[in-house]
Amino acid sequence: MLRINLARLRQDLEDLGEIGKTPEGGVWRSSFSEADLEARRWYLQRLQDAGLQHWVDAAGNIYGRVGEGSPAVIAGSHIDSVPNGGRFDGALGVMAAFECLRTIKDHGVHTKLPIEAVAFTDEEGRFGGFVGSYALIGQMPYEEVMRRRDLRGVPLAEAMHAVGLDPARIAAARRDPNDIKAYVELHIEQGPILESLNVPIGVVQGIVAGSRTWITFRGRADHAGTTPMSMRQDAFLGAAEFGLRARDMVLTEGSGTTVGTVGVLELKPGASNIVPESAFLTLDLRDISWDVLQRLLERTRLIAHEVAEKWGLEVTVERMRVSEPAQMSPHLQAIIAEAAKELGLKAHWMNSGAGHDAQVMAKIAPAGMIFVPSRQGRSHSPAEHTDWDQIENGANVLLHTLLRLANE
Amino acid sequence: MLRINLARLRQDLEDLGEIGKTPEGGVWRSSFSEADLEARRWYLQRLQDAGLQHWVDAAGNIYGRVGEGSPAVIAGSHIDSVPNGGRFDGALGVMAAFECLRTIKDHGVHTKLPIEAVAFTDEEGRFGGFVGSYALIGQMPYEEVMRRRDLRGVPLAEAMHAVGLDPARIAAARRDPNDIKAYVELHIEQGPILESLNVPIGVVQGIVAGSRTWITFRGRADHAGTTPMSMRQDAFLGAAEFGLRARDMVLTEGSGTTVGTVGVLELKPGASNIVPESAFLTLDLRDISWDVLQRLLERTRLIAHEVAEKWGLEVTVERMRVSEPAQMSPHLQAIIAEAAKELGLKAHWMNSGAGHDAQVMAKIAPAGMIFVPSRQGRSHSPAEHTDWDQIENGANVLLHTLLRLANE
Repeated sequence: MLRINLARLRQDLEDLGEIGKTPEGGVWRSSFSEADLEARRWYLQRLQDAGLQHWVDAAGNIYGRVGEGSPAVIAGSHIDSVPNGGRFDGALGVMAAFECLRTIKDHGVHTKLPIEAVAFTDEEGRFGGFVGSYALIGQMPYEEVMRRRDLRGVPLAEAMHAVGLDPARIAAARRDPNDIKAYVELHIEQGPILESLNVPIGVVQGIVAGSRTWITFRGRADHAGTTPMSMRQDAFLGAAEFGLRARDMVLTEGSGTTVGTVGVLELKPGASNIVPESAFLTLDLRDISWDVLQRLLERTRLIAHEVAEKWGLEVTVERMRVSEPAQMSPHLQAIIAEAAKELGLKAHWMNSGAGHDAQVMAKIAPAGMIFVPSRQGRSHSPAEHTDWDQIENGANVLLHTLLRLANE
Repeated sequence: MLRINLARLRQDLEDLGEIGKTPEGGVWRSSFSEADLEARRWYLQRLQDAGLQHWVDAAGNIYGRVGEGSPAVIAGSHIDSVPNGGRFDGALGVMAAFECLRTIKDHGVHTKLPIEAVAFTDEEGRFGGFVGSYALIGQMPYEEVMRRRDLRGVPLAEAMHAVGLDPARIAAARRDPNDIKAYVELHIEQGPILESLNVPIGVVQGIVAGSRTWITFRGRADHAGTTPMSMRQDAFLGAAEFGLRARDMVLTEGSGTTVGTVGVLELKPGASNIVPESAFLTLDLRDISWDVLQRLLERTRLIAHEVAEKWGLEVTVERMRVSEPAQMSPHLQAIIAEAAKELGLKAHWMNSGAGHDAQVMAKIAPAGMIFVPSRQGRSHSPAEHTDWDQIENGANVLLHTLLRLANE
């Protein structure tokens, strides 16, 4: 069986990991940052050196390709990163796709359909995220491009102009769905499940629906020494009880794989000797079932109001962001599983709790994802790590998945 | 019966309230700030205009005086404020003491003992608090002065030099305990009790013991989407449960007037999509009983460890500050109550949940405090307010307390 060249793939991942490297050993390559531009130049040179067809589209997505014709089998991910993120998140999917193209080219393998590798622009969200993949599916209109800014107020359009991209031409990045046979993304799991099961390959069934809710409890600021306990309206107590009850809700009313997280909690005025007047917290809720998520979001609102009433507080509940779940193609799941089996690798069917370009691609084409284990489930951190043999396994599963799809 | 001149007292409080006034209508007169220096100059001029003996000691405490001899009956408080604090906190005690001296002088009242009004340096804590009163009782050594800095790193010594005070001379501010007959402080309650009881005068029995504990729970930062609930070590959950249990402890194991407050809670890394790795919180615990407070502090430590164990977290508990309770002189309590009764004013015996210079003075002399109601218990805020008739009541009780003490 054909195999990728791990030494070459490893060298590329290590070289890319040097670009935007942080003192902690992570990478910081926000989309269109200096480090991202350096990574783009480096990758284009690598495509050139490999003698592969390659181009950059109107959204800044970087393509490589082997073969001719249509529709294309596309593999990809992103090379931008979160601030001080890990070396593998996104980069693995792009570099492995690139390695697959080289392996296919080097061995003179001919496929019925062409195979492409794509590196998407701004998956991680400097400008809101998924800019490149939404442009590919034709759902990133010019008005939306002009609206997007980063946290410091830099417009996406300005960042695009700086690298010679014209926002007015964004529509040219669109691909006709008939031109796409399938999209496959190899990615680190970013969670602890595969490692805990000691299984090398994850076959992704779906990408969960996500939501972010802002909850603010409001009471009254009082002197911590002079105000009897019975005369307080302490916003902290509302936030604390809400957080614990939200967790109970996830465990007792969720689907079993529902996750809920309070990641931000801010008390105001925030002095040790003042009873908190307000408590702001975020609740991140995710589930593969859209219905379950909707039901839990309703329950969240009820619980917040029950807790507020109990503690004599006011509360506002704002639903900030809701994303629908994405179903991975059952056909692609089967192909990925077969490829793993042929390579002698155990596979585990699972959902992705994190968002990926595959969820965008799934809107117009059959999409699939292959996961490899993350050490201790760590990600978005310099501690992110996947063993090289696991990377080799994942890249080989990707290779054979692409070959099967391109020969159907 | 002799009465203070409310119009004059009100004018002084209003004039002083203009110095360091904030846009929100509060005052910001941190000790030795520009606003505090202006207030000091203004008050010295008022003492001068009133034809009263007056001086500034080696700690920057400002004195006024009527009468001759020793020991002196001293009334006072402070004119520095917290950032954006209220007009009455501290200022009332100083201006009312000043008004008492003027009333006594204007009416040609002679007392056996001299009566002094003192405005203490840095009660509120720019340089750690109680600088002036500790200097008066001889417990502010030169080394301590040299050690103290404000939050921006400005040394107390530098601030003193700037106003012509020599830190090396701090010991000269000490008063011989035999030279002090008693110390009396009129202050706003800063709590809601007198207002809720509709009683105009509070007779303070004691100033509660206070403590500040820092608790840090440490777990593991994980991706909020990809980490199953059962595989998390979520520091938020520890903090939330600890805070609720600390409140239960206060209510069920405290003295009945124990207060406990979580005023600060910080999650790290503090992103909505990351399980919190650490949660830092403060617990402010106060009780009039030193024994009760000690017991609750021990329980606090136990509860923190129980909660940490339950959630799979590590925890550190740091006792940052503990202040002993101060007993107000029973004799002074009786005199204050008699003065109120003679003036036809109801009085309520109560503890002070906040710290005051009186707790420092109580270490070397009989000390007493008179409270007047705070609207809605608000303090350390522009919303701080006490009605003018309540201020008149309090100042008259102070006047007759001082007269009784000076004629004993």
